[in-house]
Amino acid sequence: MKPPVVLIRDKYSFLIERFEGKLHTHDGIINLEELRNKKIGDEISTHLGVKYRIIPFRAVDFFKHFKRSATPIMPKDIGAIIAHTGLSPDSLILDAGTGTGMLAAYLAYFNKYGEVITVEKRKEFAKIARENFRIARLKNIHQIVSDVLFVADGFKKEFDLIVLDMKDDIKFIPKAWDLLKVGGHLVVYNPYIEDTRKVYEVMIKEGFKSVESFEIIKINYEHKRVGTRPFTRVWHTGFIVIGRKI
Amino acid sequence: MKPPVVLIRDKYSFLIERFEGKLHTHDGIINLEELRNKKIGDEISTHLGVKYRIIPFRAVDFFKHFKRSATPIMPKDIGAIIAHTGLSPDSLILDAGTGTGMLAAYLAYFNKYGEVITVEKRKEFAKIARENFRIARLKNIHQIVSDVLFVADGFKKEFDLIVLDMKDDIKFIPKAWDLLKVGGHLVVYNPYIEDTRKVYEVMIKEGFKSVESFEIIKINYEHKRVGTRPFTRVWHTGFIVIGRKI
Amino acid sequence: MKPPVVLIRDKYSFLIERFEGKLHTHDGIINLEELRNKKIGDEISTHLGVKYRIIPFRAVDFFKHFKRSATPIMPKDIGAIIAHTGLSPDSLILDAGTGTGMLAAYLAYFNKYGEVITVEKRKEFAKIARENFRIARLKNIHQIVSDVLFVADGFKKEFDLIVLDMKDDIKFIPKAWDLLKVGGHLVVYNPYIEDTRKVYEVMIKEGFKSVESFEIIKINYEHKRVGTRPFTRVWHTGFIVIGRKI
Amino acid sequence: MKPPVVLIRDKYSFLIERFEGKLHTHDGIINLEELRNKKIGDEISTHLGVKYRIIPFRAVDFFKHFKRSATPIMPKDIGAIIAHTGLSPDSLILDAGTGTGMLAAYLAYFNKYGEVITVEKRKEFAKIARENFRIARLKNIHQIVSDVLFVADGFKKEFDLIVLDMKDDIKFIPKAWDLLKVGGHLVVYNPYIEDTRKVYEVMIKEGFKSVESFEIIKINYEHKRVGTRPFTRVWHTGFIVIGRKI
Repeated sequence: MKPPVVLIRDKYSFLIERFEGKLHTHDGIINLEELRNKKIGDEISTHLGVKYRIIPFRAVDFFKHFKRSATPIMPKDIGAIIAHTGLSPDSLILDAGTGTGMLAAYLAYFNKYGEVITVEKRKEFAKIARENFRIARLKNIHQIVSDVLFVADGFKKEFDLIVLDMKDDIKFIPKAWDLLKVGGHLVVYNPYIEDTRKVYEVMIKEGFKSVESFEIIKINYEHKRVGTRPFTRVWHTGFIVIGRKI
Repeated sequence: MKPPVVLIRDKYSFLIERFEGKLHTHDGIINLEELRNKKIGDEISTHLGVKYRIIPFRAVDFFKHFKRSATPIMPKDIGAIIAHTGLSPDSLILDAGTGTGMLAAYLAYFNKYGEVITVEKRKEFAKIARENFRIARLKNIHQIVSDVLFVADGFKKEFDLIVLDMKDDIKFIPKAWDLLKVGGHLVVYNPYIEDTRKVYEVMIKEGFKSVESFEIIKINYEHKRVGTRPFTRVWHTGFIVIGRKI
Repeated sequence: MKPPVVLIRDKYSFLIERFEGKLHTHDGIINLEELRNKKIGDEISTHLGVKYRIIPFRAVDFFKHFKRSATPIMPKDIGAIIAHTGLSPDSLILDAGTGTGMLAAYLAYFNKYGEVITVEKRKEFAKIARENFRIARLKNIHQIVSDVLFVADGFKKEFDLIVLDMKDDIKFIPKAWDLLKVGGHLVVYNPYIEDTRKVYEVMIKEGFKSVESFEIIKINYEHKRVGTRPFTRVWHTGFIVIGRKI
Repeated sequence: MKPPVVLIRDKYSFLIERFEGKLHTHDGIINLEELRNKKIGDEISTHLGVKYRIIPFRAVDFFKHFKRSATPIMPKDIGAIIAHTGLSPDSLILDAGTGTGMLAAYLAYFNKYGEVITVEKRKEFAKIARENFRIARLKNIHQIVSDVLFVADGFKKEFDLIVLDMKDDIKFIPKAWDLLKVGGHLVVYNPYIEDTRKVYEVMIKEGFKSVESFEIIKINYEHKRVGTRPFTRVWHTGFIVIGRKI
């Protein structure tokens, strides 16, 4: 078993990056060197005898353990992007507007046998994202700190998927067309409806087909002893426009 | 270039499984043998000179081209399952309740370097699903025609993900626990709220953690000259309960 | 008992405007003169002995029995207008853009001890609405066939509520301000989001307070033997902007 | 002009019940005796010269100024009840489960030329509601502090509308049938889906027609300089079941 792993008990979880030193929990201290002789699924005890389970660090844990800068895109939206573009796990993906790196990390995780190029021009965001990629041990992310509008001209390869979550998304749409393979998808994520409309119109104008504009809502259900009722933690996050180069 | 490919023009698309014979479209006839000398991204003409684009057959095309028996699960729900379980593309997946095979096919597509075992007891459903898997050329699906409640006892391997879309889902939950790896996920898909509640309660009782019950709504936006407005093609499909073995 | 009344049996209902002649139903013929000796709540039989219940003609029956021209505003939206403006039943209301007359009729019904002035410039719409008002026996509706932008200058009285469901809504907002009492409300109903935004901005600029922009969604639940699930007959109808003159 | 009135400036508002004494605002002190010579729509100044507008106290102000015990029903739901039952403003209404008195007050306000009987068995709730009714100067509410299951037997009159927002709603449904006029409506408000289903089934069994089970969602739109986006302050409040005695 190699790091990273997650130690978990009820709603408490700790990301362990190195099997050395001591972890102070409110249930007592864990000697992390003991992890060297354990395997995924085993338990480890604090000095007070409280047991934590060892589980692998997977994409679903990114949300809890990533450092945050901008508001990260949520799993409901990431799932929609993957399913509605039919992402194959050996694709070449361009992610423009790294932000926290949540989307790039998720995409790299699913696209394990392919590559993700992520571009961000704000250095302070890129730094936090880089740290998140390191934590997640994702080796198929190539991070570029620059303006994608300039750097993209140098890209030779053809992309299967391009995702934009950035200010100048409209300007980049014609370049996205050039960079995509036939059959590939462009996805633009945007919090505001007016911008979403502009993106939709420019994508239609640039020749994209099957262009669709939507938002994904997740309605949770709470099952209490007295009964079941719906609730939403977050209602609106962003609009998604998807089109295909045909 | 090998079949299958899709020939597409505007909203018309044809799945081509063999590069032989003739395809009759309302725009004229296409000689499919010509496809042997073409590649993805090329165009092919009908005898009337109307051009169709050749694109790869990807998961997003399953919905249009699969044969249907039961109502298939929709991409919005498939995406949520993938993102909320953090599916790695080299996983071992059990899909109980094959139905049309849509979910198994999608999962096999994303989980390209892993395997999907799908089980269905209704022979007529299994037959249609088998045909769909053949069309999609998915080699990592193992189809079993039997009652999963019996056949599962023979499974030796540990699963990363188990998805239930079947009548006796509740009865299978304890077996699902036994079959999962530590850190693996159980997902139960269900159209009715009362059944969803029962699933939730049994999963809690069986020891699953981070159990969450939700539904995914896709709100489309139509951008017409006169303005933008939301609409939904389909509002409710099913509820999803996800839990993790920890 | 005086007409109009409704004869109802299961999902079949007939609006009776005169207690004379014969009504042919698929359950047999009803002699309407018999209604003269009956009262609300009584039953009346067809010549085949099938019984219909006599109920009053109320606002909830407008939807079934009104003649239609444009798409009528729905009860969910009418209810929101009434509740969010705190309509008192002795108000003076201006309804600009009569359409089918559904909203004017509903408002006149609730505002029984007040008055509703409704204005429509398209003669063919006004004619159908007039017929609907006649059917509903609403005596407190004053119908004007003209362009409200011109005719409004002649209005001397101060309104408690002004509702706009018409093309030139933006142009009328400053006039609406002048026509409202202090504490009165302006409501603008609109199917498109871009227009809704413009309305919102102009209302803010004209000095309206507590301006709110929203849409009302009605989610129905179907309780079948196999379980309960949500559905929507109609998802989006229109956006509502409400502001108050303070 | 008679009290109560509301003094309002931007988002600050004060309910004034007596035209005597002094009101301390963060903008300075207002001498309330000056209100005796003012009328609705006038302004009144603090000793610092900041002006407040005098507006009438209407139903829309109940939400801000009522004292709270239980969670009050929201305007979106009150509007749906009024519109879907076609409430005439001279009706006889029974409101069982007074709670904060919000619904009774709203109904009394709309039903100005009719009467509302409201029943609550918890004395501490009834006391707060009584205070709210007093503030709103609603003279057509008759408040009973008792268990509606017992007290209802004494009701001789026939009701146009009965609304239940109380624990033993199911038990009261047969009595509600007896108490309603032909053509009248029963409305049951309930936060949980399982209880909603039971209510629905009992109403069907008791003979109610046009029974419908739904929930009302209000989606707000925020129009900022950077763009428009939806949000919800409160997603789920309660389910509404409506049926008609025919």
